[in-house]
Amino acid sequence: MEIKTYKKDFDHSYTMGAFPTFELINSMPENVIEVYSSSTFTDIDRLEETCMRNNIRLIINDKVINRISEKGNVYVVGVFKKFEQKLDNGKPHLVLVNPSDMGNLGTIIRTAVGFGITDLAIIEPAADVFNPKTVRASMGSLFRLRHMKFGSYEDYTAYIGQNDMASGTKREIFTFMLNGEKPLTVKDCPKPKLYSLIFGNEATGLPDSFLSVGTSIIIPQTKFVDSLNLTIAAGIGMYMFCDNANI
Amino acid sequence: MEIKTYKKDFDHSYTMGAFPTFELINSMPENVIEVYSSSTFTDIDRLEETCMRNNIRLIINDKVINRISEKGNVYVVGVFKKFEQKLDNGKPHLVLVNPSDMGNLGTIIRTAVGFGITDLAIIEPAADVFNPKTVRASMGSLFRLRHMKFGSYEDYTAYIGQNDMASGTKREIFTFMLNGEKPLTVKDCPKPKLYSLIFGNEATGLPDSFLSVGTSIIIPQTKFVDSLNLTIAAGIGMYMFCDNANI
Repeated sequence: MEIKTYKKDFDHSYTMGAFPTFELINSMPENVIEVYSSSTFTDIDRLEETCMRNNIRLIINDKVINRISEKGNVYVVGVFKKFEQKLDNGKPHLVLVNPSDMGNLGTIIRTAVGFGITDLAIIEPAADVFNPKTVRASMGSLFRLRHMKFGSYEDYTAYIGQNDMASGTKREIFTFMLNGEKPLTVKDCPKPKLYSLIFGNEATGLPDSFLSVGTSIIIPQTKFVDSLNLTIAAGIGMYMFCDNANI
Repeated sequence: MEIKTYKKDFDHSYTMGAFPTFELINSMPENVIEVYSSSTFTDIDRLEETCMRNNIRLIINDKVINRISEKGNVYVVGVFKKFEQKLDNGKPHLVLVNPSDMGNLGTIIRTAVGFGITDLAIIEPAADVFNPKTVRASMGSLFRLRHMKFGSYEDYTAYIGQNDMASGTKREIFTFMLNGEKPLTVKDCPKPKLYSLIFGNEATGLPDSFLSVGTSIIIPQTKFVDSLNLTIAAGIGMYMFCDNANI
């Protein structure tokens, strides 16, 4: 196929770099269209073996690599079909409402996978989860979780509502807000069986209407900062709720 | 003074944007050389009042603003003298060994200030703490903590050693490492009176020689990620140790 600079409306996207490309091949071989490698890539034998084992075409082509990897330092590029899977309603969910930065979105995905959270709801408008920048920031973790886009928070509620009835376990909702009611401390962290953690946009957080959705949480912080960075807040929230003693 | 694009060897640096400039003026008025504002800045009255109260010269000059703010969207620039203060050995320390990314360094500083950690040791070589990119990522939090650079970890040890003898409280050292011994869990987090939290470089972490320095800590994570992002690991470490129930 012809390889062009990524655009959001493509049906495919790219992994830039060896690490995310190996993650792609190992997690979702059926979605890989083809793999490109630079002639100077040092770990070519392992890449060849991995592609062959998964029946994936490997093409050595420096010109293609240079064209799509905008800022160099990339030796391997994977081309893959975009995908979306239904979230598992029996599992904890991370819900990002209007995340706007691709680097943040990728970093949060990487952290979620690190803490065993495997289901991500993205409420649109949102940064493109398939943009190569997001994929790269996720270090290929995007291929290790289910993600699903929703047009509004209400659409998400409708989706989990159907299944709540089916599964029987009640899902508890926690919204992270600067004006949240419940301080999240090491001594006093909720331990729900099934939960969704909701985080807002980088600049604006969650609108006040979310105060009445489930339990609102504040991560205690000094008055000397405006707020915590979204990726840090999400990292701490996931760490605290995932009960990592079991990882 | 003549305003030029920032270079590391300057004695001064810049805050880009209104928020970090207000932080600068309010925290360290004595270090401010002068402040520039765009003629279209909407909160000019408050800026004028703040500068006047602190005896700081405010200059309206769109040309200067455009020249030093490389990627636009900046309406206010503060010019300040660089500084360094001695760390307080009676307080917890955050120690960053060879941090290489200015955005990460700034984000970690912002998080530290958010969790009430006011003393930062930077082991060189390291990203420039005064680069306008670092200052901007810190959202001006750089002016809310003490920071001190050391040529090596041994130099830092010597610095805290002197004071350990004087203060009488023993400082406990915790190194965050992927091969750390002690898993950091919500149920089991050390509660030392006085501590230093040590984090390594983004790409390489701490070298194994740090395994014998104090207690080595691992934040439990699934095998599906290579590691957590440095800013996330540092955020979780500080959150857990700072006992934010008291913030």
